[in-house]
Amino acid sequence: MGIIGSTIQPFTATAFQAGKDFFDVSDADVAGKWAVFFFYPADFTFVCPTELEDLGEHYAMLQKLGVDVYAVSTDTHFSHKAWHDTSDKIGKLQFPFLGDQNHVLARNFGVLREGQGLADRGTFVVDPDGVIQIMEITCEGVGRNANELVRKIRAAQYVRNNPGQVCPAAWEEGSDTLAPSLDLVGKL
Amino acid sequence: MGIIGSTIQPFTATAFQAGKDFFDVSDADVAGKWAVFFFYPADFTFVCPTELEDLGEHYAMLQKLGVDVYAVSTDTHFSHKAWHDTSDKIGKLQFPFLGDQNHVLARNFGVLREGQGLADRGTFVVDPDGVIQIMEITCEGVGRNANELVRKIRAAQYVRNNPGQVCPAAWEEGSDTLAPSLDLVGKL
Amino acid sequence: MGIIGSTIQPFTATAFQAGKDFFDVSDADVAGKWAVFFFYPADFTFVCPTELEDLGEHYAMLQKLGVDVYAVSTDTHFSHKAWHDTSDKIGKLQFPFLGDQNHVLARNFGVLREGQGLADRGTFVVDPDGVIQIMEITCEGVGRNANELVRKIRAAQYVRNNPGQVCPAAWEEGSDTLAPSLDLVGKL
Amino acid sequence: MGIIGSTIQPFTATAFQAGKDFFDVSDADVAGKWAVFFFYPADFTFVCPTELEDLGEHYAMLQKLGVDVYAVSTDTHFSHKAWHDTSDKIGKLQFPFLGDQNHVLARNFGVLREGQGLADRGTFVVDPDGVIQIMEITCEGVGRNANELVRKIRAAQYVRNNPGQVCPAAWEEGSDTLAPSLDLVGKL
Amino acid sequence: MGIIGSTIQPFTATAFQAGKDFFDVSDADVAGKWAVFFFYPADFTFVCPTELEDLGEHYAMLQKLGVDVYAVSTDTHFSHKAWHDTSDKIGKLQFPFLGDQNHVLARNFGVLREGQGLADRGTFVVDPDGVIQIMEITCEGVGRNANELVRKIRAAQYVRNNPGQVCPAAWEEGSDTLAPSLDLVGKL
Amino acid sequence: MGIIGSTIQPFTATAFQAGKDFFDVSDADVAGKWAVFFFYPADFTFVCPTELEDLGEHYAMLQKLGVDVYAVSTDTHFSHKAWHDTSDKIGKLQFPFLGDQNHVLARNFGVLREGQGLADRGTFVVDPDGVIQIMEITCEGVGRNANELVRKIRAAQYVRNNPGQVCPAAWEEGSDTLAPSLDLVGKL
Amino acid sequence: MGIIGSTIQPFTATAFQAGKDFFDVSDADVAGKWAVFFFYPADFTFVCPTELEDLGEHYAMLQKLGVDVYAVSTDTHFSHKAWHDTSDKIGKLQFPFLGDQNHVLARNFGVLREGQGLADRGTFVVDPDGVIQIMEITCEGVGRNANELVRKIRAAQYVRNNPGQVCPAAWEEGSDTLAPSLDLVGKL
Amino acid sequence: MGIIGSTIQPFTATAFQAGKDFFDVSDADVAGKWAVFFFYPADFTFVCPTELEDLGEHYAMLQKLGVDVYAVSTDTHFSHKAWHDTSDKIGKLQFPFLGDQNHVLARNFGVLREGQGLADRGTFVVDPDGVIQIMEITCEGVGRNANELVRKIRAAQYVRNNPGQVCPAAWEEGSDTLAPSLDLVGKL
Amino acid sequence: MGIIGSTIQPFTATAFQAGKDFFDVSDADVAGKWAVFFFYPADFTFVCPTELEDLGEHYAMLQKLGVDVYAVSTDTHFSHKAWHDTSDKIGKLQFPFLGDQNHVLARNFGVLREGQGLADRGTFVVDPDGVIQIMEITCEGVGRNANELVRKIRAAQYVRNNPGQVCPAAWEEGSDTLAPSLDLVGKL
Amino acid sequence: MGIIGSTIQPFTATAFQAGKDFFDVSDADVAGKWAVFFFYPADFTFVCPTELEDLGEHYAMLQKLGVDVYAVSTDTHFSHKAWHDTSDKIGKLQFPFLGDQNHVLARNFGVLREGQGLADRGTFVVDPDGVIQIMEITCEGVGRNANELVRKIRAAQYVRNNPGQVCPAAWEEGSDTLAPSLDLVGKL
Repeated sequence: MGIIGSTIQPFTATAFQAGKDFFDVSDADVAGKWAVFFFYPADFTFVCPTELEDLGEHYAMLQKLGVDVYAVSTDTHFSHKAWHDTSDKIGKLQFPFLGDQNHVLARNFGVLREGQGLADRGTFVVDPDGVIQIMEITCEGVGRNANELVRKIRAAQYVRNNPGQVCPAAWEEGSDTLAPSLDLVGKL
Repeated sequence: MGIIGSTIQPFTATAFQAGKDFFDVSDADVAGKWAVFFFYPADFTFVCPTELEDLGEHYAMLQKLGVDVYAVSTDTHFSHKAWHDTSDKIGKLQFPFLGDQNHVLARNFGVLREGQGLADRGTFVVDPDGVIQIMEITCEGVGRNANELVRKIRAAQYVRNNPGQVCPAAWEEGSDTLAPSLDLVGKL
Repeated sequence: MGIIGSTIQPFTATAFQAGKDFFDVSDADVAGKWAVFFFYPADFTFVCPTELEDLGEHYAMLQKLGVDVYAVSTDTHFSHKAWHDTSDKIGKLQFPFLGDQNHVLARNFGVLREGQGLADRGTFVVDPDGVIQIMEITCEGVGRNANELVRKIRAAQYVRNNPGQVCPAAWEEGSDTLAPSLDLVGKL
Repeated sequence: MGIIGSTIQPFTATAFQAGKDFFDVSDADVAGKWAVFFFYPADFTFVCPTELEDLGEHYAMLQKLGVDVYAVSTDTHFSHKAWHDTSDKIGKLQFPFLGDQNHVLARNFGVLREGQGLADRGTFVVDPDGVIQIMEITCEGVGRNANELVRKIRAAQYVRNNPGQVCPAAWEEGSDTLAPSLDLVGKL
Repeated sequence: MGIIGSTIQPFTATAFQAGKDFFDVSDADVAGKWAVFFFYPADFTFVCPTELEDLGEHYAMLQKLGVDVYAVSTDTHFSHKAWHDTSDKIGKLQFPFLGDQNHVLARNFGVLREGQGLADRGTFVVDPDGVIQIMEITCEGVGRNANELVRKIRAAQYVRNNPGQVCPAAWEEGSDTLAPSLDLVGKL
Repeated sequence: MGIIGSTIQPFTATAFQAGKDFFDVSDADVAGKWAVFFFYPADFTFVCPTELEDLGEHYAMLQKLGVDVYAVSTDTHFSHKAWHDTSDKIGKLQFPFLGDQNHVLARNFGVLREGQGLADRGTFVVDPDGVIQIMEITCEGVGRNANELVRKIRAAQYVRNNPGQVCPAAWEEGSDTLAPSLDLVGKL
Repeated sequence: MGIIGSTIQPFTATAFQAGKDFFDVSDADVAGKWAVFFFYPADFTFVCPTELEDLGEHYAMLQKLGVDVYAVSTDTHFSHKAWHDTSDKIGKLQFPFLGDQNHVLARNFGVLREGQGLADRGTFVVDPDGVIQIMEITCEGVGRNANELVRKIRAAQYVRNNPGQVCPAAWEEGSDTLAPSLDLVGKL
Repeated sequence: MGIIGSTIQPFTATAFQAGKDFFDVSDADVAGKWAVFFFYPADFTFVCPTELEDLGEHYAMLQKLGVDVYAVSTDTHFSHKAWHDTSDKIGKLQFPFLGDQNHVLARNFGVLREGQGLADRGTFVVDPDGVIQIMEITCEGVGRNANELVRKIRAAQYVRNNPGQVCPAAWEEGSDTLAPSLDLVGKL
Repeated sequence: MGIIGSTIQPFTATAFQAGKDFFDVSDADVAGKWAVFFFYPADFTFVCPTELEDLGEHYAMLQKLGVDVYAVSTDTHFSHKAWHDTSDKIGKLQFPFLGDQNHVLARNFGVLREGQGLADRGTFVVDPDGVIQIMEITCEGVGRNANELVRKIRAAQYVRNNPGQVCPAAWEEGSDTLAPSLDLVGKL
Repeated sequence: MGIIGSTIQPFTATAFQAGKDFFDVSDADVAGKWAVFFFYPADFTFVCPTELEDLGEHYAMLQKLGVDVYAVSTDTHFSHKAWHDTSDKIGKLQFPFLGDQNHVLARNFGVLREGQGLADRGTFVVDPDGVIQIMEITCEGVGRNANELVRKIRAAQYVRNNPGQVCPAAWEEGSDTLAPSLDLVGKL
């Protein structure tokens, strides 16, 4: 089986989140809720803050949809805090940052650049059963798009909540969906 | 190394394309150009035609950007032709469909659902060196978005053509880019 | 032990049959009845429809003999339905078509052309104990003969129902059979 | 790859043929001509002589078609000669019998019943390149049909000699054949 | 341990014996009695009938001594019967012939010529405990001597029945035997 | 391949022979001549001297036939000499005794009783090519028969010298032999 | 061999040093000079800055002694720069910091806490041949002492430069040394 | 895990200590107390006595701190006693010397020079749980410094006894310590 | 552990002893008493009888000391008896000779010359616990000395019976022994 | 092959010898001369000095016989010197002592007590070809006898210098020797 449909593997990581003391996050904490794991290469770098800021601007919406967000790099939680303290863009972000300096999460999700010790720019959407439903990776230098991420999460939630319905391409909340049936085979 | 940054593996597949006799496509045909491999589960099904139609509407743009497009499922080229002959939506599409009934491409790109013999809904952008730069997979029932695909390809092309520049989150053609430098470290 | 005399291996496949919703067929469904597995390379191709049509013309007789018939290719059940909907020859057929896009049946019966992902033109007769009693494979381009298949099934049924009798070459229903005995040894 | 399309493996066997001294036959002797390997369980038994007699009645025709015939069992050439000398039916046969008491041929063609040391009732048609094109096996007690064998050999020869043509089901010499083409896809 | 002193391995073979229907013989049938396994290369050949005839002339004596006799070749029981039916020499023989076409007995006793599928000309005397006490093998073309076989069986029976006695060279029934003792050491 | 037809393995052993100093015998010394290897369990024991005496009485004949004789036990050449010096029966013997206290010969010919360090009572006839043609082993307490040994050696020599001839059972020098031919098949 | 006396293994790491652009350091850069590798767990933490400050205060002396200094943690060079930019203590330091986020150096020197992805508090002195001469590791919470480090480096340099002399315990520059000789054995 | 943080492995060694009969020391004797294992290459040599003397001068202090001291070399306890009896410097020492002539301790602590059978000049501080907290090794010819050892032991004891406190670089008894907290991150 | 201090391995051998029937000796017979295993190369040879005679002259003394004596070679017990019967020197000996023709004892004690099948000239003294305490081996041609053997056995018995005492070099019964103590260390 | 007859393995050890500086001894230094390796457990112990003293009293004689002597324990050469300096008995000895603290020699000669790191009390006589000819080991507490050692060395030298002669038991210089010959077999 490929990564889509697979269950996330066990992990424990120390998190920094604005206004809280350091705390641990594990796979048990993720169970029962939708979650986004948002990997980026390194604190204090270039594309990452714009992506994180973009994600931050959609954080309220994601929380309304019941989706936890975890930013992850191979930096420590100490470094995450220091970045938060010194960067205007990062300082505004409310979601937790996981310290993956032991490479466990990056390796679990298949985004560790082994020789470099850095994570790829990968996004993974995990459903309440711990199953990965959506993923995306872009190369160095290409920023992601939080708006599109929200669109896909909505579609995945719609499909989960409405058995027998599927969402067509570029589906937006409120658009029509399809109900597969024998009669439709070969008719689309 | 993860999939991003890896080089595509050898393959040969028989293609159907509107208005042409069946022909073979191999990794050699892909070399030297940008290419999109657009996997979908099966001919004659439900979400797929909307995604393929959405992709078809961006095909002219992708060709202008010098990007080849290959739709791929584990159906044969015979089946692809039959679908094209009988479906209004599919009948309009101009890009080639590869017959992957031997599962080589789906396995190469890691999107074969082994037990089922069907491909995941995965998109892969390959640069002229045969290196995968962007990928995305969505679960059953969630349609992709060709508009976002074009946005990411433009960014990847921009980065390739402008060494020293990177594209921030949700970057659109014409927006500002960033030039990483020592001075920027920790300043974003 | 060779294939003759071996028991069929477990499988589950989704079937299309005219006038019914898609349904699953497994080795359990085959138990207790005579069955023919009739493999062919691909939907929408050339020799196959003539063979399937020929088989269709003997389907009533086979049903009278208590024999289930399964047409099998590495196409999906979606493709089978589409072919049925669009081909006059195929549209008339009443027996189920199994979708073997995961290659399980073709591999079980030893007729998968591994490199190509297509099945050979093989016929297998399975008795009510799930034991393969008769098989035949012809190369690409050579059609089978349903009349001869019926003749052999009748002979196999006769032998099963009349212990101690065997059917000579080119035996037809109603012809003489032989009863092996010590006295006959070396006398034929 | 399955057995159809595979090349026969090396062998050497001692043959008995009416009116000749014992002689050896090997894969080299088979090269360059069409050949039938006709396996049967044992000399001096029951169904076999009727099948061999039936084959004998088509031997002249097969020779006219340029097809060599080899009857094969796990008996020795001594036993073959003794059978020939003592059986009216067998005594009339003109084609050679191969002594396969070392089980090499039966194992090569996959028809050895390992525990029993006897061959299944299998027929194999080999083309001039040594490639198996047609095969058939029936269970104990069910006789084959030489007429049908001739029909299939004619079809295989027609296909070999007329590239681009295929023979439909139950094709007989002189009937129509088909020429596959793109336009025919989905039209049969 | 070598073959002398080893216990015979399990087997089942179908036997032909004059005046009886075919029947199975296994190691269980051999237990509790003296037995001779008399291997020869093939039915319908040259030295073998003279050896079997010679053995036949001593069969009454062997039976009086309580010794079963089994002639064994890699031919089938069908072939054994046919030979019996057609050969004057063989037709007179009363002991059973075992069909070893699956090579089990020849391999168990170490007399299978692997490449040829024929047995060596080997004789094995088995005591009532299933233990091999005497063996002999001669090359192709050299006939054995049943008289000498009887002499050795008598000696083996004498030794078994008279613990503490041994039979000197070329001992014949009625001659002196020796009783080993400390005093004899170095005195013979 | 079994032992008959196999070539003897390399060895070197120290020999005692009446009237000579100790000397070495190896497989090279055996090449080019007929040889008998006559194993027995131990010097100074019971059956052995009668067998060796019996062999001694046929030694002149065997030499006339060009056959070397080697008596072999796992005793040393020192022990062989001591036995020769102190036993009337052994003292008369003219053929060499090989010291096999390192078990090489007994193991090579398969007659070592591993747990006991003694050889079985085995006789092996080796032709001038070093190939074993005749063998015999008897259990503890049963003496062999040199007369029969001579008979079999004569037959083996006859067959070697007269290609196309075979010796029937219990053949004696001067008796009729057989010339196998196609016509004889099934006629004996 | 233990770590003392072993040669450093190959590595390449990106360095941050005050007033310079990022640059790479490898084992080749270390060859030919004395070097100190000074590992600490993480940027932005507690004991580390006091140790690094203490080391900084001895940096001028070490440079006078021809000793390069490398501070190493599993943080990136980006993080090192950010720490330098924001910490008064760290901001004053002039020696380079190596980014070991791929764990190569920490593993090479045996100080990686595998489960945690952090380095132990280890110091290693490497001579101009790349051989480790002095090492020290302290547990979490116990700071090292740069003064003692300088003392030991001076002693190691003295011993290297004065063959035949050794430095006694707590030796300080200018104190007496010892010249080992046979006469001294057992006299100290 | 590296050596710091690992638990000492089992050992038993015979000790010499001034004024006592020989006695055994094992890992069980070390449990529950702080201990120093002080390895040196060999009795009767050069640097070692100055180091041991230096350690002896701090022995009273270490005992006051509740720290056991074990000097260890690969010499026997007999040799240790003889050295003590004949050397003025060694004769004054009150702590036990362990005989490690079987290399168990040197191998356990990783300081055995395998080819030479001598230990490196390594010091290991073990806490009452048997966990190694501090270590140091210097090359041949460079003496250690007992004063610095005492300083580090005091710091390690302070940290163990004052959870939440850490000792900065070059900390001396009575100096300030640090209490790590979220607020301090990035502030030192 | 080396051979001294190891326990003898299980064995069973047949023994010849003057005036007794053959009997078996095993490791169980040796338990609880002192024993000497006295290996020699072969019966009927040269140095051996002088050594055995020398041992025989000390046999009464050894028996008085409670020591069993076993002479061992790779000859059989038959050969041992024959030697005893024919040699004046050997005929006088009263201790048992073990037949080790299966090489078990020679291999157990490490004195088998593998290529030759003969034992080295080795002596082993085993204490009542089955532990080897003294051993000696001399090359071919060098005789041992039973007097020295008795001296060493007396010393070993003295040490066993007087815990805390050791016997100095060349100690003879009645001479002084030593009592090791701490005070003696380095004083001898 | 056992130890007698084997060649000594490579080694290098540092030696102490009265009146000389430390020097290395290797297998090369031993070649071409007779040598005695005299192992003992440890310097400064009890039986050893009496054995070494006994050996010392025969050293002049051994040198006259051209025999080198090496005393060996697992102590260092430093310890050997210290013992020599402080013990009256040892101080008189003129032969070299090898430091085997790395256990190479003790392991090579099979006398290392692995668990203890001490050598057994073993003596080995090596001939000028480096082949071990005589060995002896005694248990703890039993002293060896230099007089007997000299006797055996003389015998070994005699045998080497007089091919064809062997020395009987307890042979002393000047006594009769034996010349093995065929005539002597069984006569001693």
